[in-house]
Amino acid sequence: MNNFNFCRPTDFYFGRGEENQTGEICKKHGATKVLIHYGGKSAIKSGLLSRVQESLDDAGISYVTLGGVLPNPRAELVYEGIKICREQQVDLVLAVGGGSVIDSAKAIALGVPYEGDFWDFFMGIRKPERALKVGCVLTIAAAGSEGSTSCVINREINGVVKKRGCGNQLNVCTFSILNPELTFTLPPFQTACGACDIMCHVFERYFTNTRGVKVTDELCEGVLRTMVQMLPRVMRDPCDYDARANIMWASTLAHNNLLGADREQDWASHHIEHELSALYDCAHGAGLAVVTPAWMTYVYKHDVMRFAQFAVNVMGCQMDYAYPENTALAGIAALRQLWGNAGLPLNFEELGAKREDIPVLADRIGDDDHTEGKFVVLRKPDVAAILTLAADYQRP
Amino acid sequence: MNNFNFCRPTDFYFGRGEENQTGEICKKHGATKVLIHYGGKSAIKSGLLSRVQESLDDAGISYVTLGGVLPNPRAELVYEGIKICREQQVDLVLAVGGGSVIDSAKAIALGVPYEGDFWDFFMGIRKPERALKVGCVLTIAAAGSEGSTSCVINREINGVVKKRGCGNQLNVCTFSILNPELTFTLPPFQTACGACDIMCHVFERYFTNTRGVKVTDELCEGVLRTMVQMLPRVMRDPCDYDARANIMWASTLAHNNLLGADREQDWASHHIEHELSALYDCAHGAGLAVVTPAWMTYVYKHDVMRFAQFAVNVMGCQMDYAYPENTALAGIAALRQLWGNAGLPLNFEELGAKREDIPVLADRIGDDDHTEGKFVVLRKPDVAAILTLAADYQRP
Repeated sequence: MNNFNFCRPTDFYFGRGEENQTGEICKKHGATKVLIHYGGKSAIKSGLLSRVQESLDDAGISYVTLGGVLPNPRAELVYEGIKICREQQVDLVLAVGGGSVIDSAKAIALGVPYEGDFWDFFMGIRKPERALKVGCVLTIAAAGSEGSTSCVINREINGVVKKRGCGNQLNVCTFSILNPELTFTLPPFQTACGACDIMCHVFERYFTNTRGVKVTDELCEGVLRTMVQMLPRVMRDPCDYDARANIMWASTLAHNNLLGADREQDWASHHIEHELSALYDCAHGAGLAVVTPAWMTYVYKHDVMRFAQFAVNVMGCQMDYAYPENTALAGIAALRQLWGNAGLPLNFEELGAKREDIPVLADRIGDDDHTEGKFVVLRKPDVAAILTLAADYQRP
Repeated sequence: MNNFNFCRPTDFYFGRGEENQTGEICKKHGATKVLIHYGGKSAIKSGLLSRVQESLDDAGISYVTLGGVLPNPRAELVYEGIKICREQQVDLVLAVGGGSVIDSAKAIALGVPYEGDFWDFFMGIRKPERALKVGCVLTIAAAGSEGSTSCVINREINGVVKKRGCGNQLNVCTFSILNPELTFTLPPFQTACGACDIMCHVFERYFTNTRGVKVTDELCEGVLRTMVQMLPRVMRDPCDYDARANIMWASTLAHNNLLGADREQDWASHHIEHELSALYDCAHGAGLAVVTPAWMTYVYKHDVMRFAQFAVNVMGCQMDYAYPENTALAGIAALRQLWGNAGLPLNFEELGAKREDIPVLADRIGDDDHTEGKFVVLRKPDVAAILTLAADYQRP
């Protein structure tokens, strides 16, 4: 087990109706003026935004609003948010939405007290030293941004969309309000994409070279088994409260780093996918459903028993003691079947990606010296090979 | 799944040598004057106290010391600590020790800013509104106090020792430093008592009537399986770092309420045991090894399938589909065997408790109207019956 530091001070409010406490929770955390940040019209139509505003009114907290966050959130809106916060002396950014809205809110919160360009933090030129508080009312279980240090923003530079992350303790939400009922109305495809993202956050930590990490391995497998059980349930009945609730809490646990603080982590699949969603503007979870099993197929021989353990403990496969490779491959096949049944794309064609873009995608990841991943260290030809596996995969 | 609030802001530093950062960590959290609180001479002899003091010196943080915390910590020393903190204008209480030392530090921290008697909080007369910060350098994996809201203090009133708890968000440590190596030198009996306490913190949450809590059930079973695997390892080799590390992190996870925030919890076994350790001054974990299996035997029929699930998923028993009761009982037997093999007492005689005290113990829990537990609601005759089962149990 590796040494680690772990600190996740987020104040979580979980369950039915908790969003009606938003005002009181903002007050508890010292907010006086809030920027309500949201995405499209669904937050308005569903009445969620009005309920949040009413709750702020009741608590005597004033607010301004900024909607329009897109999936794969853009830097342009972050600049607009920073300007509003400065002009209006906002002290807490309240994200009402999913991972993209929360990440946009986090980037605004980093940018407000910084004299330079917030993009410096995403280019790795500077480290943020302070930030406004961020709270959220979560509407989709997926990115885990409600409990994580992560923040990912897209920016177009010379006609190419760059997707860049800034991981920092300052990005941890002050509070997060999680009502599983708010996810009842999600389209099935978004639900499935979210589930895939959650599982992949665990995979990036589970497939590790660090030994002696039994207790966090157990947590990883437990969260994954929960997803394997709950994803089909919620696809059958989108209003299954317990299924939605288990998925929502799993999304937080999967990415607040409780499951990986003690180990070397991989993240190659995520980084490869970032280039897919930057190029095609596809859903991150959909891209992961295509990339991750291809990554697994490419690397499983590095630690066959780890993949066999995954197959048996998570996917419910039978152990083939004579040929553990068969077990490992059966686990990957079972994962694809789970995701395919949930309506996720499993290859380039289904994702809307093009085989001829593979060299471009591999180039965009980095130059010839660049490496990706830790479980197996990948170079450009490896990335191209993984993308080729992803392109070639045929459903059985 | 029940609605819940969950907030555990503790800043954890985990791994080899982390105690040498104590001074810097205190500084990071704004401490200027520290009360170092500790137990017996082992902290001095081992050199741990000197290392902590050196680290504080290096960081330019001044300190006073107060040793002498006993297992089942006493109110008298808490008063002394409060007096010192007020006189010396201490702003952080640093516990160097196990659960008893941390709990004593937490009680001091609650008492300092309160004008009345700190015992008010433990009698439920008043709720604490503020507290000094508490940090800890943990030396035994057991109570989980390093990450929990719990605090248990003993006080002699009219010749009878009363053991009382005060659960409060203010009791959450500001930081906790966990170096598994510091537990290498623990006597085997203390190691086993700690492991038993850890497992029982999970049991109090795992045996619940709340449904739809798959993800936290998975976390509970994962932490329990870790303990089932690691306890025999650490009894064989007390310097097995990974075993000690997994147990230490399990101790935090078992009691910071991540495993139970979403459900009704029981706590009857703990409350019954508190009367045993108050009367006999026995180790809490030893008392639990006697009480908990007796409680299980008394209540398992309330939810046979829950106990069968425990037997199969945690203790590795085979499911008897025709007679699930057999599986449930096999799980309890396997648990006793695990604990017995680790040198824990399994009945009154081995604990040093007396059968003739059963009426007194049952009386001390509460009057005739008093109930204990939630999984099964117990009254005084039930408590007496459980204690009788505990007294009668014979090793096979």
